Amino acid sequence: MDNCIFCKIAKGEIPSVKVFEDDRVFVFEDINPILPGHTLLIPKAHAENIWEISGDDLAAIHRASKRVAEAIRSVLDPVGVAVFQLNGRGVNQVVMHYHLHLVPRMADAPALTMTDWELKPGNLDEIRRIGEKIAVALA
Amino acid sequence: MDNCIFCKIAKGEIPSVKVFEDDRVFVFEDINPILPGHTLLIPKAHAENIWEISGDDLAAIHRASKRVAEAIRSVLDPVGVAVFQLNGRGVNQVVMHYHLHLVPRMADAPALTMTDWELKPGNLDEIRRIGEKIAVALA
Repeated sequence: MDNCIFCKIAKGEIPSVKVFEDDRVFVFEDINPILPGHTLLIPKAHAENIWEISGDDLAAIHRASKRVAEAIRSVLDPVGVAVFQLNGRGVNQVVMHYHLHLVPRMADAPALTMTDWELKPGNLDEIRRIGEKIAVALA
Repeated sequence: MDNCIFCKIAKGEIPSVKVFEDDRVFVFEDINPILPGHTLLIPKAHAENIWEISGDDLAAIHRASKRVAEAIRSVLDPVGVAVFQLNGRGVNQVVMHYHLHLVPRMADAPALTMTDWELKPGNLDEIRRIGEKIAVALA
């Protein structure tokens, strides 16, 4: 879709810290991470939300999320991983292209909030370093 | 699994406000709803988290979640639906059986938090009333 930032990322028109892709799914590091290792999975076919996405894309995203969660665990050894996905501006969906968040939390990190966080750019070197390790674990 | 409350709910050994089930998936209303219409999807086969659940069960859960989200939208007309799933006590997973939360939010409801909410019993009559409507929308 024209002017959709996530469509452009999936097509490589906007650079990203990619960790994985297949025919349906594109996976990259969030550059405004809630916590280090915050990773996003998106369908390559534009769909705004859970109501629009196809069942096949949804299944592909979530099958991939299991692999990504394994890679995140092997790289970061977190105390937990929160998986979430927001539908509608009323629950703080910001980019209107379906995206699944995987957020690992280390033991000493603050508690997570889901819909009320600051979009604050992370340290791009750290993001790239973690992304590279997750990509290697997925390869 | 013995002594798993969600296994017992899926088998009907503990009563619940069921809204849907198929071969793999059981769907019911959360009796400690964050907001009205808070619905849970679980695999019938015990699995603790995203690392343990099979890819087939994961795909089945999320394909079903799309249908449930459609039913919730038709019944409640929320401004958004948050979908989330917690893995590990470090991100506040309480019941150690994979469960996907669908939480609709009405326009005037408070902002959602993901890992920091009070487990407070809801009004069971209201839960049953909403659950019944969602079940009808799914039938």
